[in-house]
Amino acid sequence: MRIAELSRRADMPVPTIKYYLREGLLSPGERTSHNQARYAEAHVRRLKLVKALIEVGGLSVAATREVLAKMDEPGMSTLDSAGKAQFAMTPARPAVEDDAWRAAARETEALIDRQGWRVRATNPARRTLTSALATLYRLDQTTQLQLLDSYAEAAHRLAQADLTLLVREPDPDALLETSVIWTALGDLVFSALRRLAHEHIANDQPKT
Amino acid sequence: MRIAELSRRADMPVPTIKYYLREGLLSPGERTSHNQARYAEAHVRRLKLVKALIEVGGLSVAATREVLAKMDEPGMSTLDSAGKAQFAMTPARPAVEDDAWRAAARETEALIDRQGWRVRATNPARRTLTSALATLYRLDQTTQLQLLDSYAEAAHRLAQADLTLLVREPDPDALLETSVIWTALGDLVFSALRRLAHEHIANDQPKT
Repeated sequence: MRIAELSRRADMPVPTIKYYLREGLLSPGERTSHNQARYAEAHVRRLKLVKALIEVGGLSVAATREVLAKMDEPGMSTLDSAGKAQFAMTPARPAVEDDAWRAAARETEALIDRQGWRVRATNPARRTLTSALATLYRLDQTTQLQLLDSYAEAAHRLAQADLTLLVREPDPDALLETSVIWTALGDLVFSALRRLAHEHIANDQPKT
Repeated sequence: MRIAELSRRADMPVPTIKYYLREGLLSPGERTSHNQARYAEAHVRRLKLVKALIEVGGLSVAATREVLAKMDEPGMSTLDSAGKAQFAMTPARPAVEDDAWRAAARETEALIDRQGWRVRATNPARRTLTSALATLYRLDQTTQLQLLDSYAEAAHRLAQADLTLLVREPDPDALLETSVIWTALGDLVFSALRRLAHEHIANDQPKT
């Protein structure tokens, strides 16, 4: 298909598609003349994925490029590629080496230990967690640390459900795409459900 | 205390504090001369809260102002104020009235029904959920809809734990502050834990 058709199918303006081509988020089409190219189904899917990562996942163009590069890297198992892509999707949080940060880092390690989780030192989610917990320390909100194990157990249960469904997908490309999309969307879905549940439960509390 | 001391205590530069004063995120100090004012402990706490909402919650200055206004609104029960503040913290998602959106809106209502949740039509998290589900429909990722009830049950369990801990706080101001902070930080904590659990569980999967 030509770029106009690609634009219609992916529901994305032609200038945006050209920008993504220049930024390397989309591989070039097959050249048919000096100023025309032909695009395939894979281009439609890739553009929808890029759109989801940027609009829903809130990723920058640079972060999206990195996620796609990890997805396309050859010679890895599909789940390893999915893992690398997930690492690239987790925003890097700067360490702020104050007392609160150090206490939070200890808390993070202790929680991972208590849960018996085997996770690499390079998993950027460790730092995301430490950053969040450091904020609790700085705000004197450490009572909430009591909730950590319940949160971890719920996260474990849902991650198990995610993976169980994911590995049923026989096509490796589709598996990777689903993994990337659901990493971003699952967070958003859970956050919305948690707020809805808060309202439902608060309705049953005595008013003070 | 003077503004220099407030700056040190809240770990925030004086120009930022002045900006927040102009933007109405912080109430003015008690004037002691034509160009000096005195600030209290409440100002330190408020600045830490503003910082958490902006830096960790990712809120804009305008959204932060709205959250604070809801927190300070008189004549409501503490839990009602907390609910209003949470509404203000949930980013408004524009509706895109295509087939995917309509299917997602039906899915949202059906899920809330199945869970037996009583939530207002005005809860913005309904729309967040619909927006996320609409993206799944647009990307042909509807297999993931099977996970919704597990996600909802986990969200319900954690929301219950949140509220149980929250209502033990006897001071209404502290309760409100905790509720606002934990709404934002709980999402981040859960997202990090979900990614850590993904890695742990993926380690146990056969490689393909």
